[in-house]
Amino acid sequence: MIQTPYLLFLGDAPDPLAAKVAQGIKDWRPENAVGQFRMDGCKADMKLPDMTLAEAKEAGAKTLVIGVANRGGVISQAWKKVLIAALEEGFDLASGLHNLLRDEEDLVAVAKATGQTLHDVRVPSVKYPIANGEKRSGKRCLAVGTDCSVGKMYTAMAMDAEMRERGMKSTFRATGQTGILITGDGVPLDAVIADFMAGSIEWLTPDNDDDHWDLIEGQGSLFHVSYSGVTMALIHGGQPDALILCHEPTRDHMRGLPGYQPPSLETLRDTALPLARVGNPACEVVGISVNTQHMGEDEAKAYLAEVEERLGLPATDPYRFGSAKLVDALAAMG
Amino acid sequence: MIQTPYLLFLGDAPDPLAAKVAQGIKDWRPENAVGQFRMDGCKADMKLPDMTLAEAKEAGAKTLVIGVANRGGVISQAWKKVLIAALEEGFDLASGLHNLLRDEEDLVAVAKATGQTLHDVRVPSVKYPIANGEKRSGKRCLAVGTDCSVGKMYTAMAMDAEMRERGMKSTFRATGQTGILITGDGVPLDAVIADFMAGSIEWLTPDNDDDHWDLIEGQGSLFHVSYSGVTMALIHGGQPDALILCHEPTRDHMRGLPGYQPPSLETLRDTALPLARVGNPACEVVGISVNTQHMGEDEAKAYLAEVEERLGLPATDPYRFGSAKLVDALAAMG
Repeated sequence: MIQTPYLLFLGDAPDPLAAKVAQGIKDWRPENAVGQFRMDGCKADMKLPDMTLAEAKEAGAKTLVIGVANRGGVISQAWKKVLIAALEEGFDLASGLHNLLRDEEDLVAVAKATGQTLHDVRVPSVKYPIANGEKRSGKRCLAVGTDCSVGKMYTAMAMDAEMRERGMKSTFRATGQTGILITGDGVPLDAVIADFMAGSIEWLTPDNDDDHWDLIEGQGSLFHVSYSGVTMALIHGGQPDALILCHEPTRDHMRGLPGYQPPSLETLRDTALPLARVGNPACEVVGISVNTQHMGEDEAKAYLAEVEERLGLPATDPYRFGSAKLVDALAAMG
Repeated sequence: MIQTPYLLFLGDAPDPLAAKVAQGIKDWRPENAVGQFRMDGCKADMKLPDMTLAEAKEAGAKTLVIGVANRGGVISQAWKKVLIAALEEGFDLASGLHNLLRDEEDLVAVAKATGQTLHDVRVPSVKYPIANGEKRSGKRCLAVGTDCSVGKMYTAMAMDAEMRERGMKSTFRATGQTGILITGDGVPLDAVIADFMAGSIEWLTPDNDDDHWDLIEGQGSLFHVSYSGVTMALIHGGQPDALILCHEPTRDHMRGLPGYQPPSLETLRDTALPLARVGNPACEVVGISVNTQHMGEDEAKAYLAEVEERLGLPATDPYRFGSAKLVDALAAMG
């Protein structure tokens, strides 16, 4: 578990997109971010107070989170200077970078000397069990996609936010590095050893109050041949009561797989639901989340109306039109 | 790749069942085993010549394979003495034990000093790629099960043996530690990191002659919630042209999951085939392998006849009645 609140390190981000982890924290857990740290030439801005390490410490920040992707997979000397100073000021460091903090000898040495922690959220820090399939109390919702990167994390985050606003009991359960950094906790599922994948999701979504919902971040797709095993483990380890189907209608092939067509929403429904019912016979598909970013507003609304009619399920783009319809569907399950 | 042929180490096996790895090598790759090494009190016997290390060396053995499970997960001092002597005689060591050879300091030291290799087949030794889903030449057959441990490895091994006997081109592709020790090569899929599972199977079953069949060892089951993700990765990474459905009809619950019923063969077919067609639209279910070990002979024959009638597919117990029907089905695919 990463200690909050954070100081967000934006480094020398070449553009706002490079800082999408910081943006996610700002968007979804603004209470976790007391300020931002920017270096010369930084082109990203979270509209948070710019702070020195000392100012952030004074404001209560516990962890410096690397909220930006690094260039060329190397932690530069300019970054290093800041990271080492942060450890010396008493911050922990947290990172989702491909190259690990723990592989940098200087950071390891300073962390050891100062007693601070290096969190590499790409690497599991827990010895997960093998899944036992036992029924757990509480309710769970999982977003499954026709493809990778169609908005599954966003959908679960948006539903969690809406549910909290309504006073419903809910927890977003992160299964990827961005989600883990945003919330401070979770399972980096794509880095878990095969035999323990489903067990890690059981561990992540334990017994809970009968009226509590876990909103589980989806990964991959049953139709994406590179990652479908990860999706399968989420469906069985997560034991979902409710599935949300996620779709991006303008995509002409599966992400990274030029020869593969995305399935229809109907095919996704008819594939995912029987598999989910192996682990939870009561599971239902309750709604559809469409990523309409490449459609005009009228086109998006017409598409959503057509999908609702065709599948007989509430459909929305949670980014554009809010997630209320999807949360209504969960609320109706009692 | 483990160097063959082997000397099979049976240790102080308390019963024949404890030596099932050695038995598998003896049954399926007898040409890989020049002899057996037994200690006092050994209750297993492969009916191979008993040999000292020096005799086995003389007979050409390259690797001492631990063909027996150890008691209590500890490599005993009595075993150690033999293993160290083997390294000193110039043997490599190969093991599928849970506790790794590489974690034993004395073995590591002697292996280093003698220049011999320690093979722990439970641990991947290759950096596998992420699957790219590209169509590969050659043909592939995958055994999928209604449950774990229903005879998927045996089925693929038996088909491979029958195909070689007929002069067909085939290769058994091991995906578990027993299979890897038997054949000297493979992927320990349950120990592979999630993101690389499907890629490891693509790596294992590369381009081949158009009339060559890979017989891929199955793992887990789509209906076993602990391991279904592993099965899914095999289905998509393996890109099978042919599926064999494997079943054990007397089982009253899924292995290790008391609350879960095994699916019918029809449900397995209707679940696995559409998923396989995501990766290979030409995939077909071509036959059924039934483990009839808990049925009398008449009962077994009647059951197989009933299954053939019901599913319209050839059905056999390859252990009891041979795998010819299943190989006929592959041969008919051209």
